[in-house]
Amino acid sequence: MNQRRNLDGARLAQEARQGNRRALARLLSLVENGAPAGLIALSELFPYTGQAHIIGITGSPGAGKSSLLNRLAHAFRQSGTRVAIVAVDPTSPFSGGALLGDRLRMRTLINDDGIFIRSMASRGHPGGIARATHDAVMLLDAVGYPVILVETVGAGQAQVDVARVAHTVVLVEAPGMGDDIQALKAGLMEIADIIVVNKADRPDARQTMRMLQSVRHGGPSGHHGPGGDAPAPPADADAWEVPILLTSALEERGIAELQAAILAHRQYLSASGQWAARLAQHARAEVELWLRRHFEALQTAHLPPERWESAVDAVAARQAAPAAVAQNLLEELLASICHRRRGEC
Amino acid sequence: MNQRRNLDGARLAQEARQGNRRALARLLSLVENGAPAGLIALSELFPYTGQAHIIGITGSPGAGKSSLLNRLAHAFRQSGTRVAIVAVDPTSPFSGGALLGDRLRMRTLINDDGIFIRSMASRGHPGGIARATHDAVMLLDAVGYPVILVETVGAGQAQVDVARVAHTVVLVEAPGMGDDIQALKAGLMEIADIIVVNKADRPDARQTMRMLQSVRHGGPSGHHGPGGDAPAPPADADAWEVPILLTSALEERGIAELQAAILAHRQYLSASGQWAARLAQHARAEVELWLRRHFEALQTAHLPPERWESAVDAVAARQAAPAAVAQNLLEELLASICHRRRGEC
Repeated sequence: MNQRRNLDGARLAQEARQGNRRALARLLSLVENGAPAGLIALSELFPYTGQAHIIGITGSPGAGKSSLLNRLAHAFRQSGTRVAIVAVDPTSPFSGGALLGDRLRMRTLINDDGIFIRSMASRGHPGGIARATHDAVMLLDAVGYPVILVETVGAGQAQVDVARVAHTVVLVEAPGMGDDIQALKAGLMEIADIIVVNKADRPDARQTMRMLQSVRHGGPSGHHGPGGDAPAPPADADAWEVPILLTSALEERGIAELQAAILAHRQYLSASGQWAARLAQHARAEVELWLRRHFEALQTAHLPPERWESAVDAVAARQAAPAAVAQNLLEELLASICHRRRGEC
Repeated sequence: MNQRRNLDGARLAQEARQGNRRALARLLSLVENGAPAGLIALSELFPYTGQAHIIGITGSPGAGKSSLLNRLAHAFRQSGTRVAIVAVDPTSPFSGGALLGDRLRMRTLINDDGIFIRSMASRGHPGGIARATHDAVMLLDAVGYPVILVETVGAGQAQVDVARVAHTVVLVEAPGMGDDIQALKAGLMEIADIIVVNKADRPDARQTMRMLQSVRHGGPSGHHGPGGDAPAPPADADAWEVPILLTSALEERGIAELQAAILAHRQYLSASGQWAARLAQHARAEVELWLRRHFEALQTAHLPPERWESAVDAVAARQAAPAAVAQNLLEELLASICHRRRGEC
């Protein structure tokens, strides 16, 4: 039975590679649910990964990420590029959290065979949404989508997560953010490779753009006395200067410029050696993850559930410290493993 | 040398328990940096944890979290309760990301010996900010702060994280959130135990409160046709009804009510058995974490760095899948461990 399911994973992987959308959708569900067949398929498909340009689109709800992503996907399609969209933001119309107008605007995307849309928001993810998103992106990469757009909700940890999965992070802001400038200064801007002020049709868009430009160059100077501005850091020839762009998804303005900036960032990553460095970093994280998974399988095989329960109970009752309890469990685990190995000799 | 540092951890733990604030601050730094002495101290202090009521204060930048937290800390102090504050939000004045006015308002807190303030935002955290925050809260719990306020930035994953460390999550909103209602509907409200509309001095505060109330009871009905509203779920006698409160940190209004709601939620957790369930859940997570840490120490001891490098290189070059590479590493690790154990017999 298990054997059959595992074969299923390998077969689905092959079919998805051949362009079967239903096989891909089924595979994504298996992977997101942490099913063994999904893990097998991920492993089968791993050699084909590392090709896609993964682009994170992030920003606060209301900044217009979905409409912009819609336009951007169209722009890539018009250049003949196949595009996958992964929506992690629960408020995204791509996740079904849509207003009617948004859904209508999406219809052209949905009827295009060169576009694949996957929503992560409303499903249960045993390993966490970050892990599920990572695995989904790996699959879409392996089956040959050269561009993967990941839409995620902005602010804080969520943005740091998109920085981990994406090569290029596009931060979308609406005009008139006010207090958000503080947040931007404090770290969110650090992970943005491209900043977009969307809704450029609004009168205060240019002002927001200017404010962002001043933040990029060392913070708004208003709080310093005259002459008290910190000098701008010296320009590094190899460094990426984060562009700040004006777009209007509504009026279809600035989309080509955004696409060009994304492609320029992709080239910068290759030329600077960062693309290769990321591949190595990602490889290390994957090996560590699988080592952990294999070790957990050993735990399940060698430690009976009652043993776990009594250990947890002792800790919950504060009768023992978790470090000591874990040391004992590990000792029992290793004794059992070595005993079995000796028996096999 | 290592021995001495470990003794240091135990000594600092003892001094911190006796109320030595400098020892506590030093210990927090050790723990946040993942230093061995910090881990020893955490382990020493574990039996004393599980007492504090951990309260997460979360919400978007600009909602007025810091001022509200300031008032709330004062209210607890006036009831004679010692309070620890952990600021995870990088824009918080407690983290140094402050405007001058905020800092002045904080001064009374800083001069109070019954209050301990710790900022997590600007330090390096090798195990991640979530882990560092968890460990800091554990320490503050163990040294006897009965109330720990954790201030964190709102939206998305960050809020889910605060739900993991806190018993009671207070979601702070400012009037006129607009699009955020979508985000709230989609999941953020699920983790809030108490919702606060701050800045009640503003004229649109009541409208925001009404909107939140309608979201709490199954979403704003405006999008359905007449009679198309989903019926409200039946009230469960044992369930916690999330209160929606109006506060004004500026005018010191609603603070006592917020404190009362927090204390009521604490009582609800005990009475419903959820407090005990959380202790068990937390104990399990701690044992798993330490098992992982011990296992990682074994990896370091038994697998030479060159072996790791070649494994990672093979995966980065897509010559081997991470699952297979990890399986080989684990096999070598276990062979080495069992070989050494056999030698000791």
